[in-house]
Amino acid sequence: MKQLVLLLALSGSLFLAQAQEIKEDFKPSSKNQPGQEYPQVNSQGYARFKIVAPAADSVRVSLGLGGQGGTKLEKNAEGVWMGTTAGPMDEGFHYYHINMDGGTFNDPGALNYYGSIRWESGIEIPAHDQDFYALKNVPHGHVQQVLFPSPSTETSRRAFVYTPPGYYENPSKRYPVLYLQHGWGEDETAWSNQGHANLIMDNMIAKGETKPFIIVMTYGMTNEVRMGGMRNFKIDPFQTVLVKELIPYVDSHFRTIADQPHRAMGGLSMGGMETKTITLNNPDVFSHYALLSGGTYAPEDIKDKSKVKLIFLSCGSKERPDGVKSAAVALKEAGFNAVSYVSEGTAHEFQTWRRSLHELAPLLFKE
Amino acid sequence: MKQLVLLLALSGSLFLAQAQEIKEDFKPSSKNQPGQEYPQVNSQGYARFKIVAPAADSVRVSLGLGGQGGTKLEKNAEGVWMGTTAGPMDEGFHYYHINMDGGTFNDPGALNYYGSIRWESGIEIPAHDQDFYALKNVPHGHVQQVLFPSPSTETSRRAFVYTPPGYYENPSKRYPVLYLQHGWGEDETAWSNQGHANLIMDNMIAKGETKPFIIVMTYGMTNEVRMGGMRNFKIDPFQTVLVKELIPYVDSHFRTIADQPHRAMGGLSMGGMETKTITLNNPDVFSHYALLSGGTYAPEDIKDKSKVKLIFLSCGSKERPDGVKSAAVALKEAGFNAVSYVSEGTAHEFQTWRRSLHELAPLLFKE
Repeated sequence: MKQLVLLLALSGSLFLAQAQEIKEDFKPSSKNQPGQEYPQVNSQGYARFKIVAPAADSVRVSLGLGGQGGTKLEKNAEGVWMGTTAGPMDEGFHYYHINMDGGTFNDPGALNYYGSIRWESGIEIPAHDQDFYALKNVPHGHVQQVLFPSPSTETSRRAFVYTPPGYYENPSKRYPVLYLQHGWGEDETAWSNQGHANLIMDNMIAKGETKPFIIVMTYGMTNEVRMGGMRNFKIDPFQTVLVKELIPYVDSHFRTIADQPHRAMGGLSMGGMETKTITLNNPDVFSHYALLSGGTYAPEDIKDKSKVKLIFLSCGSKERPDGVKSAAVALKEAGFNAVSYVSEGTAHEFQTWRRSLHELAPLLFKE
Repeated sequence: MKQLVLLLALSGSLFLAQAQEIKEDFKPSSKNQPGQEYPQVNSQGYARFKIVAPAADSVRVSLGLGGQGGTKLEKNAEGVWMGTTAGPMDEGFHYYHINMDGGTFNDPGALNYYGSIRWESGIEIPAHDQDFYALKNVPHGHVQQVLFPSPSTETSRRAFVYTPPGYYENPSKRYPVLYLQHGWGEDETAWSNQGHANLIMDNMIAKGETKPFIIVMTYGMTNEVRMGGMRNFKIDPFQTVLVKELIPYVDSHFRTIADQPHRAMGGLSMGGMETKTITLNNPDVFSHYALLSGGTYAPEDIKDKSKVKLIFLSCGSKERPDGVKSAAVALKEAGFNAVSYVSEGTAHEFQTWRRSLHELAPLLFKE
């Protein structure tokens, strides 16, 4: 099947309509459940969906070009619902779901990822730079699920801890630590499941592009806002969990270098907002700060310049890159070691944050 | 809402119909997605489902009393589909899915668990003995995701490794290892996600009921049968992965006691079949054998009795407990240290296997 579609190419504020032929080189998405043929993606970034539900009245996929309300599927002669996005999707990972007969469901073909305060379907649009987060034949670090005691929330809380390759083989070596937060509606599984933080690190360490360090990922909310309400969000409960409970647990269960110069905090989106507040509140705990699509620091935010070793600010080119760039310039002019990074062609999504981690890692814990 | 339903109590071959009043003490299942009110379970073991899909023609839940084809939901005045199982479910964890308008979907309210070669919805029926796998305020071990090199399958393969509490605090202590396999249609996530193997161990270790040991869980198939085909199943490819690739990786990346007396293998269902074949093929690798709803050994299967320290056979009372019991008797009469265990009131499901691990752990690695 070949067909012509209207490609809506949004490039900045330029709005260009052109005809593009869809290449019929569709392959199953790399985020499919084992053995599932659909959803599929092609080399141009189109996504094609197939849902078996012969008696359904309507099936729509939430993923599609912006402002078009997703992709409406059509029922074919066999009673199977199929459809292709109206244009190429951005490179990288996207959450989506199915709207069917008035309800919200997941695509039975795709794996699930926690985002938008539900386990969503996930799809991967091949990216020109996907090599940096590919699973390769290199030494791999471990991702450890830990359950740490949290007296303040009266439960055991979960974190994932990445220990780099070589951690076992060098039993007396100690490592710096990056505390890395997810965004709103996500949880502590995001950075390793959809972010591939472990593979990004494994690949860079294998090439000598970054120092090995530990990454700690935990849930950035406490129970009252588990369902996503942000209006009454207060930083104190999570700050207590992170600084008073998780950090001591990590420092007593992993071979960390347990001091301020060897401790970083970063986060994406809401996790950036948390990072900003917690780093400013705790200048003697963290020395390296990273906000990924998560705001900026102003020079006057920081009381003691000597305690800050790095400020990293990033976002996608489809977000507000000027704000990130100008904030880094202002910080540099004020004497901070500030770096900005803009991910080309991506928006407020995980490809921006995978690339941001890839840029951030080599800058951390330099002596 | 109170209603009378026909309770079909299947007890062995006895078929008894009686009226039972459903108690309206339904609560969200502990396996629900965060904040989701449905599915619910009551104190008698009934499950109640709610699916929002006002335009659907029919919605059926695969879970229900045996032989009844699941539970048909009815649409109420608000367009919401609801229904309650016709009787109490067995205690413990069950996989299920939704059949809607001719397609197979998951319940948007429930968490997903890999079983039946797909990520299924999961529900937890409270069990009288659920305390032994509850999340408690005790020291917790870690569950580590490792990616180990597998030259025979030309990829990096995934395993989960449970390291017991105390593993970090005692940096010179070495531990015995149990290699523990999932069943057909499941994968390496099953024993920790739905089996709660880590919590079972944490709780027993806290009470001094078992020696601490390491548990290794990996995927028990190689790619050609990933989609579940068992007819052409050959043990060789997985045996190579386990014995030649995974064991050396574990012994070189964890503090194991790397010898036959301190290495056990166990598995549930298909994993029991694999355990039987691999232990018999490799008498110098494993010393403790455990088949959980996964067949039996006969005395003549084993060539050198002196190499076998334990044979553990178990199943649910709703399976074939006589076969398991008589096999253990025959093994004992032949001079083996054989133990049988029957889980009361459970079938070929995870509650049987959680209880089996709980019974097995204290028997392992006794000197």
